[in-house]
Amino acid sequence: MEVFQNRRQLLMKQMQKQGISALILTPSTDFLYLTGLYKKPAQRITALILTASRASLLMPGFERENVEGKLNDILPVYYKDGQDVLSLLCSLLPCRGQFAAIGKEMQAQLLLAIQEKRPDLHYVNADQLLAPMRRQKSAEEITILETAQRMAERGLTRLLETSLVGKSEREVSRQLMQLRLEEGFDSVGEGIIASGENTSSPHHINSDRIIRPGDVLMFDIGGTYKGYHADFTRTFVVEKAPAEFENIYSVVLEAFFAGQHAAVVGNTAFSVDRAARDVIDKAGYANYFPHRLGHGIGLDGHEPPFISSDSQLPLEPGNVFSCEPGIYLPGRFGVRIEDLLVLEETGARSINTLSKTLQIL
Amino acid sequence: MEVFQNRRQLLMKQMQKQGISALILTPSTDFLYLTGLYKKPAQRITALILTASRASLLMPGFERENVEGKLNDILPVYYKDGQDVLSLLCSLLPCRGQFAAIGKEMQAQLLLAIQEKRPDLHYVNADQLLAPMRRQKSAEEITILETAQRMAERGLTRLLETSLVGKSEREVSRQLMQLRLEEGFDSVGEGIIASGENTSSPHHINSDRIIRPGDVLMFDIGGTYKGYHADFTRTFVVEKAPAEFENIYSVVLEAFFAGQHAAVVGNTAFSVDRAARDVIDKAGYANYFPHRLGHGIGLDGHEPPFISSDSQLPLEPGNVFSCEPGIYLPGRFGVRIEDLLVLEETGARSINTLSKTLQIL
Repeated sequence: MEVFQNRRQLLMKQMQKQGISALILTPSTDFLYLTGLYKKPAQRITALILTASRASLLMPGFERENVEGKLNDILPVYYKDGQDVLSLLCSLLPCRGQFAAIGKEMQAQLLLAIQEKRPDLHYVNADQLLAPMRRQKSAEEITILETAQRMAERGLTRLLETSLVGKSEREVSRQLMQLRLEEGFDSVGEGIIASGENTSSPHHINSDRIIRPGDVLMFDIGGTYKGYHADFTRTFVVEKAPAEFENIYSVVLEAFFAGQHAAVVGNTAFSVDRAARDVIDKAGYANYFPHRLGHGIGLDGHEPPFISSDSQLPLEPGNVFSCEPGIYLPGRFGVRIEDLLVLEETGARSINTLSKTLQIL
Repeated sequence: MEVFQNRRQLLMKQMQKQGISALILTPSTDFLYLTGLYKKPAQRITALILTASRASLLMPGFERENVEGKLNDILPVYYKDGQDVLSLLCSLLPCRGQFAAIGKEMQAQLLLAIQEKRPDLHYVNADQLLAPMRRQKSAEEITILETAQRMAERGLTRLLETSLVGKSEREVSRQLMQLRLEEGFDSVGEGIIASGENTSSPHHINSDRIIRPGDVLMFDIGGTYKGYHADFTRTFVVEKAPAEFENIYSVVLEAFFAGQHAAVVGNTAFSVDRAARDVIDKAGYANYFPHRLGHGIGLDGHEPPFISSDSQLPLEPGNVFSCEPGIYLPGRFGVRIEDLLVLEETGARSINTLSKTLQIL
């Protein structure tokens, strides 16, 4: 409980510094980060409202049992189905002319309604307050991320003990979802299970294509555990590798390590992306690595810091992000290798344990 | 493909009628409804922009393989990681003074950025255009909803063939997720698995409480199939029912049928809620039914029409919504029974097949 209260106090100090009088957060990862309350976005309004003097939680009265005993200094404001909730919410906001920070994930339908009812406030993106806090993971958060990553790796390891030839990407995806649930994830998504020429599409959508000998196979999977995301990618070949594959695999692996080694405290995200990209460029594949090197991860699957050519953000201890270079040859195949890195004073430590050496299934 | 193009044309006519010059939709169920493209909300911007003269799809270039051959008359506008996407998006919007409709689920961070760059436009909620279209399900949509509902029912039926005593709510939830995936859902959530006194919380969050003889057990589950949601609730008892349970069960069941019978074309959502509520009020449980009677369902789990005391919306053929009365005795137990109803000219037809008669496990 204390951890959430501490985060709220830190945030309120930042609000004061930046001249922001109120923060409005609907259920989202920012909401979870500040309250510890799991609440899915839903059609009925739930909103945390922080001002200098008060933390209020507006929510349906019949859900009160979900929060009782968990609110600490947050004051609940319950409403009933049929009540004018928008007016209630707006009455909790500060007076005319002040700045209100809006949770980045609030739905437009609510923001537009608030803006219409309270055109006298200035609305800004709350991410400027929350992103810097969330980028710096605590030891507890890193432990959870490591545990989650282990579950995802075990799921894939168990999958690879079965035969995949003759199955479709969608069938394998379903099997891998079940294995990951067994490993302890609270929830899992389909992930990317790409086979053959489908691996040349970096964000492939799983299809009914049947896996066969000679295929390249790419698995990009995760899952959520205690609210935190796992995420990693491995690329394999079934029985035999297509021409050029082994060379490309080794280039991608070298690019991965170049990124990892460049990721030291104080270096910019840009320079890390650049270090990995240089390896791929020099090998002659500059046009075949169309995405950034990585993204932060935590309560969101993709969050700051983004390891991208347009980010001058200096990396800080406690940053956790993916390093995932790839080369994709249109119509033929693609290779991506992804670990999660934790930035420590001594360098970037991978929290994966699964080998990245080329494996033939 | 034609179905999505037809929907876009119908929508463009409505925009013209209402004096709206542009529609901006990020990945959401509205986006899926108008394009047929499965795309999860992601940190990189993807946006469908409709104007009187053009349908454009702004998206990351490296995802082009996901949409090729599926766009019909939509013009793709690809961008690269690192490009100024916001300026690109705003350049596709109409000129000063006009109205732009914003998809209800767009994230506030994007809306705030657009408003800052284009303060010369008026922004309105696109739901006024889309909700009336989406409320009226086609025969194809209803068939998918029926198929999905059958999968959820089969999952629960198979679960009940196993012994639940001694397992925790969370264990049962995981088991039921796996069974539903096996039945063919594309994705499933945890659902509500409430036991004993936890059933008295209408939106209970699954816990580690162990199921034991004498417990009331409530299952509120769904899943998504081809983008459409299943949803139903059944309440059981383990071995023996607590005092007052059987009476309450029969009141809730009577309320369900009262709601179903009141749901005829032209009646208001309010009157349907009222009909079910009257049964519960007369039985003396008025204070123990704290939520609306139901919600529409389709590409969203909760969508219009809402069957609520504050809705004067007249029901129309093709509406699909839940009928889910409940009685919840604090600290003791709750009962909820939920089917999905399709409104036809001849009345409201349930698309559930699972018995609603009280069953002792």
